[in-house]
Amino acid sequence: MALLDRIDGPDDVRSLPPEALPRLAGEIREFLIESVSRTGGHLGPNLGVVELTIALHRVFASPRDTIVFDTGHQSYVHKLLTGRRDFGRLRQRGGLSGYPSRGESEHDVVENSHASTSLSWADGIAKARRLAGERDRHTVAVIGDGALTGGMAWEALNNIAAEKDLPLVIVVNDNERSYAPTTGGLADYLATLRTTQGYEAFLTWGKNALSRTPVIGNAVYGAAHGMKKGLKDMVAPQGMFEDLGLKYLGPIDGHDTAAVEATLRRARDFGRPVLVHVLTKKGKGYDLARRDEADQFHAVDKINPETGLPLQVKGRIWTDEFSDALMRVAADRDDLVAITAAMLIPVGLREFAERHPDRVFDVGIAEQHAVTMAAGLAYGGLHPVVCVYATFLNRAFDQLLMDCALHRAGVTFVLDRAGVTGTDGASHNGMWDMTLTGMVPGLHLCAPRDAEALGRALAEAVDVPDAPTVIRFSKQNPPAPLPAVRRSGSVDVLAEPGEGDVDLLLVGLGELATTAVSVAEKLTAQGRSVRVVDPHWCLPVSADLVDLARSAGAVAVLEDNLVVGGVGSQVALALHEARVEVPVHLHGIPKRFLDHGSRGEVLEEIGLTPDAVADALDARLR
Amino acid sequence: MALLDRIDGPDDVRSLPPEALPRLAGEIREFLIESVSRTGGHLGPNLGVVELTIALHRVFASPRDTIVFDTGHQSYVHKLLTGRRDFGRLRQRGGLSGYPSRGESEHDVVENSHASTSLSWADGIAKARRLAGERDRHTVAVIGDGALTGGMAWEALNNIAAEKDLPLVIVVNDNERSYAPTTGGLADYLATLRTTQGYEAFLTWGKNALSRTPVIGNAVYGAAHGMKKGLKDMVAPQGMFEDLGLKYLGPIDGHDTAAVEATLRRARDFGRPVLVHVLTKKGKGYDLARRDEADQFHAVDKINPETGLPLQVKGRIWTDEFSDALMRVAADRDDLVAITAAMLIPVGLREFAERHPDRVFDVGIAEQHAVTMAAGLAYGGLHPVVCVYATFLNRAFDQLLMDCALHRAGVTFVLDRAGVTGTDGASHNGMWDMTLTGMVPGLHLCAPRDAEALGRALAEAVDVPDAPTVIRFSKQNPPAPLPAVRRSGSVDVLAEPGEGDVDLLLVGLGELATTAVSVAEKLTAQGRSVRVVDPHWCLPVSADLVDLARSAGAVAVLEDNLVVGGVGSQVALALHEARVEVPVHLHGIPKRFLDHGSRGEVLEEIGLTPDAVADALDARLR
Repeated sequence: MALLDRIDGPDDVRSLPPEALPRLAGEIREFLIESVSRTGGHLGPNLGVVELTIALHRVFASPRDTIVFDTGHQSYVHKLLTGRRDFGRLRQRGGLSGYPSRGESEHDVVENSHASTSLSWADGIAKARRLAGERDRHTVAVIGDGALTGGMAWEALNNIAAEKDLPLVIVVNDNERSYAPTTGGLADYLATLRTTQGYEAFLTWGKNALSRTPVIGNAVYGAAHGMKKGLKDMVAPQGMFEDLGLKYLGPIDGHDTAAVEATLRRARDFGRPVLVHVLTKKGKGYDLARRDEADQFHAVDKINPETGLPLQVKGRIWTDEFSDALMRVAADRDDLVAITAAMLIPVGLREFAERHPDRVFDVGIAEQHAVTMAAGLAYGGLHPVVCVYATFLNRAFDQLLMDCALHRAGVTFVLDRAGVTGTDGASHNGMWDMTLTGMVPGLHLCAPRDAEALGRALAEAVDVPDAPTVIRFSKQNPPAPLPAVRRSGSVDVLAEPGEGDVDLLLVGLGELATTAVSVAEKLTAQGRSVRVVDPHWCLPVSADLVDLARSAGAVAVLEDNLVVGGVGSQVALALHEARVEVPVHLHGIPKRFLDHGSRGEVLEEIGLTPDAVADALDARLR
Repeated sequence: MALLDRIDGPDDVRSLPPEALPRLAGEIREFLIESVSRTGGHLGPNLGVVELTIALHRVFASPRDTIVFDTGHQSYVHKLLTGRRDFGRLRQRGGLSGYPSRGESEHDVVENSHASTSLSWADGIAKARRLAGERDRHTVAVIGDGALTGGMAWEALNNIAAEKDLPLVIVVNDNERSYAPTTGGLADYLATLRTTQGYEAFLTWGKNALSRTPVIGNAVYGAAHGMKKGLKDMVAPQGMFEDLGLKYLGPIDGHDTAAVEATLRRARDFGRPVLVHVLTKKGKGYDLARRDEADQFHAVDKINPETGLPLQVKGRIWTDEFSDALMRVAADRDDLVAITAAMLIPVGLREFAERHPDRVFDVGIAEQHAVTMAAGLAYGGLHPVVCVYATFLNRAFDQLLMDCALHRAGVTFVLDRAGVTGTDGASHNGMWDMTLTGMVPGLHLCAPRDAEALGRALAEAVDVPDAPTVIRFSKQNPPAPLPAVRRSGSVDVLAEPGEGDVDLLLVGLGELATTAVSVAEKLTAQGRSVRVVDPHWCLPVSADLVDLARSAGAVAVLEDNLVVGGVGSQVALALHEARVEVPVHLHGIPKRFLDHGSRGEVLEEIGLTPDAVADALDARLR
């Protein structure tokens, strides 16, 4: 690691002679494989951007110039080149974030891990620089081909293309996949660009004339540009980016540092928006990753770097339970179709897609389209099941509200990675969905407490013809089965007090039903009389739950969601409207962004452990 | 009206001889000008699509074929041709909706008035038909050039383009403007297509060869298509739509019914996705509208059809007050920039744009980009003021949360048309924003009660450097000034009880502060002791408000927003956390979609009038 050890910031990267760069790239790859296999993290994407990131830091002078990484999980190389080599506690509490973090470095700008935002950020930053008269401060956005399928990237492209004097460089990191192979017309078009003769011609020309010495390269470029049949036609066909008004350069071999560097230099000096099309290979330099066709080690847990196999057996997670439940209900329902936004396998649709290839739609990173398309499919007589991570539904709230709910569309939403997810940090926590979906008129919401409840909820959801239904669960293994001791109307009673009055009706949602049972044990040991229930469908608030509250001295609701506007607040409202005047205690996630850490650490910090909830309720009940 | 009177449905349109169509178009325009000038409504957009809508109903057999109108305000002609000629109570309670409405007609599909959704709807519907084996049922989306700037249209185009056997027709109704002239690279590109020689050539060729008899036209088309240099190159240059994989036909003169009809027929029979580029003129046939460069009578109140002038003087609305307030704060703040999403004038930015043309950005119908670009501008040292209608912020919740709030960006959001808007129906009511923005950590929210409070809030908001701020107001005239009788910390006290205990602390937000004062008068007359307050910044809930609640027998919150998760629920939570155990009564908009009607009618229906609130509270306080 002789070279990498001497890199404390971009200046050190810039001062290396070009011939040292392949060695630096090799050292970085070695470091990443060795380090990320011990901690887990985004391995494939970072292996793909080693040379590109080196070139970016040689051409642009961060932080005076601004480099924005879209989605952020490919910023490990950037971290290494900006003085952050302690990857030992990556994504753990107190360790490096798995995403850019302004708290870590002045070289980090955008922490948001939701895709397709970088062009809008860059547009804003570049326009601020222009207004300040700082035309020598450059702005670069690095965006994957997958993220270009997201609508807001288009909105930004449309705006940027109209700016004829904005110094802004868009680097399209084209690895032909986001989490999965990229789909759609854009992907086909990028493939066309990839395979034009211009590409091969450019590689040869670039390697021979440009790469060795940028000075001569620029002269050659200038000459070519001046010719009537200029560089553009020599290198690539006229195309949609040029039609929009964007200067297009590429495609470039993204693993040829010199070629990337020379092209970025030209793009930088252009003085107007330029799109640089860079071809990379996800997992580059790690055969095991390259051979993994599913996702090329996009994100891994702790693995044996020699075998690529996980060190711990993960067991069945909620996603597996959903996958099986879907196969069961789909067996005799020809009208079921499934939709995913570039995450077919992570959301558990692999088996469904294999069995029913014509009934699954991967729309790319395009949650808005996914949800409105679902409304269209429902209008056409089908029952769509839309499978996304909970945090990504934020992108499609308007479509859920206005296209699905207003039109009484029978669409089922399955939200994976709901609640506190922990290690991926603030923007991955699925802590907003119950408040967000709870605003939607007519919508039915279930946070199943165990695998059995998930299967039951899904079977019920696909039978609702005229309203959206939502089922949400975490990224964990489901808790041990928690059978009801009895039913009270539609409400599952999980634990009953002994004789006499009920001091507390404790409502546990999702995995926190298990927490609620523990809380009840603690309170019972202190002499309280506690009934624990799971309403199964928690929204709309059921009359049966309201009835149970009538005979309780107090009500408490535990939810793995924002306490503001959550299910608990709707329970309180329903009780108030029914004139059931009992104190209602709400336990959920406070309204702030949560730092990365393990799920257990985060739950402890926010007081959602059995001990913390029992103590708080004990104090309240006194 | 001899012809129009005989049109009871699409069959009647289809049975007209082609030579009768110009007369039908003329009658429809006459009807629209005469009728909409009496009721108010969307005049300009509908005058632009008369021939196009006639052609659509002649070529496609609705409802077996599905016609989806994007944004929906251009569906008046469609209503006329599907048996709805009673426009006398347009947009009034019990009268026709100003948008498509499934309750009105089986020919209406999409009621959502938010832009850019039609392609996703059409994609879903067409795929449902394909799965059902109904390849003879066609799907058409009619989308404006402005709506194409919205991200979800791009997401849909990307998906549709990849479908090689999906019978789906996209009609781009290109009038070079949405609410205002369309901006961006796409607009430039469409302008290029408009002005190519191919356009003129096509018009000539189309008129001579195709229009008179479709049968011969189709033969000519087939021959041209078979030629090596086919129709595509004859009519239009290769371009971005073709690059994506979409068949492109056009541009077509949208006021030549025969030409549009012939092209739609070819598109329909193509068997795969086709984009038909139709050129129309907003306000066509009504000189006063054509001469109105600002928005060509996009939406009008009741007008004198001879002069185009409004029949009632509207007076100063909230938007005017905001416009003036912005000019005041901008006078000595070079760092203020304003952003709008295709609605520069409706949101009150005309004067700011005239004075500071380099500091205003109209991004097109692209709320997501607007909000994240604002975060970028803030990172670059500016203070952006994002001006949108309240209901349209739904589109950018994720960007507000993850790009602005997570990054502690000082961005001010000014939400116009908040609360019950009434006549535009369910999808225009700004009833979601306080719940939605109330979820966002660190965000400050103000619903000013009068013009003075608006000015004060704006001046304070642009001084908040590290958090999003939101100011929201309705489409009405602001109420009469409502000065505070005193301040209690940060809380404005608007009415004080006499001596003794306070039975009720009544919190009135926005215009409902005025309602609250009336409610207090009624309750006082019944012997209650009521204190009325306006917290000015209502989120985060201030400690001063909590303190005032300590000395009250009960608290009530009035808000012109969803009661679920609204400010009232956050007040209740704050009181509970502070262990101030008083009953909290929430008055807001119930969780359901509201039918169109006047604001007064809707408020009456949902119990937000002074009488209704006073009665409800009187019952509660007993």
